[in-house]
Amino acid sequence: MRRMIPTSFSSKFQGVLSMNALRCYVSEFISTFFFVLAAVGSVMSSRKLMAGDVSGPFGVLIPAIANALALSSSVYISWNVSGGHVNPAVTFAMAVAGRISVPTAMFYWTSQMIASVMACLVLKVTVMEQHVPIYKIAGEMTGFGASVLEGVLAFVLVYTVFTASDPRRGLPLAVGPIFIGFVAGANVLAAGPFSGGSMNPACAFGSAMVYGSFKNQAVYWVGPLLGGATAALVYDNVVVPVEDDRGSSTGDAIGV
Amino acid sequence: MRRMIPTSFSSKFQGVLSMNALRCYVSEFISTFFFVLAAVGSVMSSRKLMAGDVSGPFGVLIPAIANALALSSSVYISWNVSGGHVNPAVTFAMAVAGRISVPTAMFYWTSQMIASVMACLVLKVTVMEQHVPIYKIAGEMTGFGASVLEGVLAFVLVYTVFTASDPRRGLPLAVGPIFIGFVAGANVLAAGPFSGGSMNPACAFGSAMVYGSFKNQAVYWVGPLLGGATAALVYDNVVVPVEDDRGSSTGDAIGV
Amino acid sequence: MRRMIPTSFSSKFQGVLSMNALRCYVSEFISTFFFVLAAVGSVMSSRKLMAGDVSGPFGVLIPAIANALALSSSVYISWNVSGGHVNPAVTFAMAVAGRISVPTAMFYWTSQMIASVMACLVLKVTVMEQHVPIYKIAGEMTGFGASVLEGVLAFVLVYTVFTASDPRRGLPLAVGPIFIGFVAGANVLAAGPFSGGSMNPACAFGSAMVYGSFKNQAVYWVGPLLGGATAALVYDNVVVPVEDDRGSSTGDAIGV
Amino acid sequence: MRRMIPTSFSSKFQGVLSMNALRCYVSEFISTFFFVLAAVGSVMSSRKLMAGDVSGPFGVLIPAIANALALSSSVYISWNVSGGHVNPAVTFAMAVAGRISVPTAMFYWTSQMIASVMACLVLKVTVMEQHVPIYKIAGEMTGFGASVLEGVLAFVLVYTVFTASDPRRGLPLAVGPIFIGFVAGANVLAAGPFSGGSMNPACAFGSAMVYGSFKNQAVYWVGPLLGGATAALVYDNVVVPVEDDRGSSTGDAIGV
Repeated sequence: MRRMIPTSFSSKFQGVLSMNALRCYVSEFISTFFFVLAAVGSVMSSRKLMAGDVSGPFGVLIPAIANALALSSSVYISWNVSGGHVNPAVTFAMAVAGRISVPTAMFYWTSQMIASVMACLVLKVTVMEQHVPIYKIAGEMTGFGASVLEGVLAFVLVYTVFTASDPRRGLPLAVGPIFIGFVAGANVLAAGPFSGGSMNPACAFGSAMVYGSFKNQAVYWVGPLLGGATAALVYDNVVVPVEDDRGSSTGDAIGV
Repeated sequence: MRRMIPTSFSSKFQGVLSMNALRCYVSEFISTFFFVLAAVGSVMSSRKLMAGDVSGPFGVLIPAIANALALSSSVYISWNVSGGHVNPAVTFAMAVAGRISVPTAMFYWTSQMIASVMACLVLKVTVMEQHVPIYKIAGEMTGFGASVLEGVLAFVLVYTVFTASDPRRGLPLAVGPIFIGFVAGANVLAAGPFSGGSMNPACAFGSAMVYGSFKNQAVYWVGPLLGGATAALVYDNVVVPVEDDRGSSTGDAIGV
Repeated sequence: MRRMIPTSFSSKFQGVLSMNALRCYVSEFISTFFFVLAAVGSVMSSRKLMAGDVSGPFGVLIPAIANALALSSSVYISWNVSGGHVNPAVTFAMAVAGRISVPTAMFYWTSQMIASVMACLVLKVTVMEQHVPIYKIAGEMTGFGASVLEGVLAFVLVYTVFTASDPRRGLPLAVGPIFIGFVAGANVLAAGPFSGGSMNPACAFGSAMVYGSFKNQAVYWVGPLLGGATAALVYDNVVVPVEDDRGSSTGDAIGV
Repeated sequence: MRRMIPTSFSSKFQGVLSMNALRCYVSEFISTFFFVLAAVGSVMSSRKLMAGDVSGPFGVLIPAIANALALSSSVYISWNVSGGHVNPAVTFAMAVAGRISVPTAMFYWTSQMIASVMACLVLKVTVMEQHVPIYKIAGEMTGFGASVLEGVLAFVLVYTVFTASDPRRGLPLAVGPIFIGFVAGANVLAAGPFSGGSMNPACAFGSAMVYGSFKNQAVYWVGPLLGGATAALVYDNVVVPVEDDRGSSTGDAIGV
């Protein structure tokens, strides 16, 4: 079902409620929880240290480094259990590409959403002095412009995930998560002060839920989902077409 | 006794005072010494450069990067000698999971503590102008909240260590230390200004010992030890159960 | 044609307009687009956060980190499709070394240029408040001095690309992109405030095109192209001569 | 002669003036040149951006990141040609451990010194507005304290080099340079504002030569050479003794 899972983990059970599937949801939960804790926590952390003045350069540098480090690690720790999605846009793209089934994708999404809300709640409860921050769009940008930018960022992120998890590329799979995190960090540095640099609908959802405002939420869903799906289609149909290794030794793992 | 040690290193001697065991304690000593030197030294370094104003953003950015780089490297250099614990919470979790014996864990702890105190002493003696800093909790947090936060951070750290050192995952083991360091860096960025972002009881102990104040010390022991042990139990019983590869080629290395 | 491409991708078609070649151009387009988006976007991002005062240290730190992270990832995602050039100076050096044909190099250049212009256009259209920035030379430097410095930086970058993509070195190829990005980051930190730290003619071209000024453009072409070609010649003729493994198992992939 | 060199490169010629040896010196030259360019250039870069006020936190953060990125890459590009020393303290330790001959070490040192002076000259000539900076000791420290601190830092660095280049450890060698760079970065963050955080006598020599003052030069030679030699002896005699794999498959590469 997922290409990068060794047979001993994936081949025993098939249903979305099997023991094996439940393990995947727990794995996604832990990874997403950790990522959101670091992504949202680092914004709170930089905000505290700048005495509320979040418009300074630290407001993008600290979250960007936190995103890079945390996404690398959180993808790594669920890499060959659940596939290391951590992001509903990745899960959506995987479903569009036929790599996971739609019911599985729904459970992944649920798991990611709950994890994000929980991480924001932990931050809210332990750090009592601040509100949980939400992603914001720069005053000069339109909502459409922000969606486009977030979509482009998500395109690159999902494209990298497809590269990193593609056994046909002949790249050792374990270094992939490093590059996935690096993309996230670079994207936040480039677009953080403009569109927010979320790329992750779960992260935007959790913080909005705990903060209590869903303003601009559509921007953080429409852009990333469309961008991610486009990346999946470009990757599979243009750059590394599945037909290319029809009949090769790994061919039987494709499109399951 | 430790999964990642090649047979030529581990299979010759068994006792906690064998030559092989002593080598492990020396290895843990060197790794922990280096990690504490960088973690505590970077706080002193940033403090000197900010003329004592440690409440600015550099006070978390510089130590966070130092934690990421130093933990990656210090885990790496003892990775297949002593297992690269560097942290009493990791050692505790390994003992809870049955991967090392309790007597071995006691010697590891002793080695880590002495290393941490020695590193802080070297800093105190060579850098004469400053006191060694200790971990602090933000004024608005409760001790309980800080324990919870440190516990959550240690959960993620130990979970990553378990992932990285698990041969059943099929991940090349040598890249694991990179991600372990990345988790530490992300955690400091997220929680440094709130609970201190220690995650490492040895580090908290050494600096408190040399500074001469054990205030809040319990926070840096209870949280990480409980969080780490929980991670061990979740990893081994829920996400990647040992039964899963019973009878496989690596099965005989489990639970020794 | 390119050493690092598995036979199943490269051996089927030969022409510069074959399906396989087109795929390489698309891959270069995506990688260069992402790199320029991050490299130029991060300058805009730091400029916004510093309220226009780009002469502060963040003006080099944020773009340097963005360069390191983005170049690593963008090389990685086209690593064994198109070779991960991302940079006309790399493509030029590969052509000088006989690793790719001159017609292929022309198409790569075209693809990289268009990608760079497109990335700058996306930034200009979505981020409406700022002009796209262009690379600048410090007031005290001569154009010749800046060319020399950019040439030296490009030498190191191309030399690293040659190391990373050389199967004769016996290094696992997939970690190579990490070091290529690291070189870019270090170079920007060292030379950013002096010569601009571009090393990439496509990046300089795209931002100049969208900004509408080609001042100093020659500096960002002459230096990197000469520096890169020198690196190719030194690598192939002095440090790791091709004759060295004449007749070895990988020898038949050399000089195609 | 050097453990990590494939037979096809090292076994043909033996003398210190053979073609193969000359290639190693060129490789060391290029690596050291690049490292010093980045290490010293980043100090000049941060100094320019802070308008001469080098006592701020950027004065350690920017050079530390430059050291980490540049040392990783410069070790990588000469990793299996010349062994990736880049540092006279590493070469000295390799000679003390019997891994390279004393005449070879002398040529390596010469190559590293010339490279460092050349890199500083390039910076001096192209960046006309500033003097090349030299390493300084904090006012409150004694020269002895600084030597001790530099020695401890070099111990960790050399110990990591020995770990990364030891085929008996069973770690994939190509990721080693990442950790070597990470150690350098962490060390600069911890000790930069106190003892300077050089760890590299060549780097200190080159900048002192071009600046024209050898004040405190002894600190940057005595500490690192003693610290590095100690690391070599501890590694080979205590932690990973050579006797351990006497007769194993890699045993014949030891002590040549």
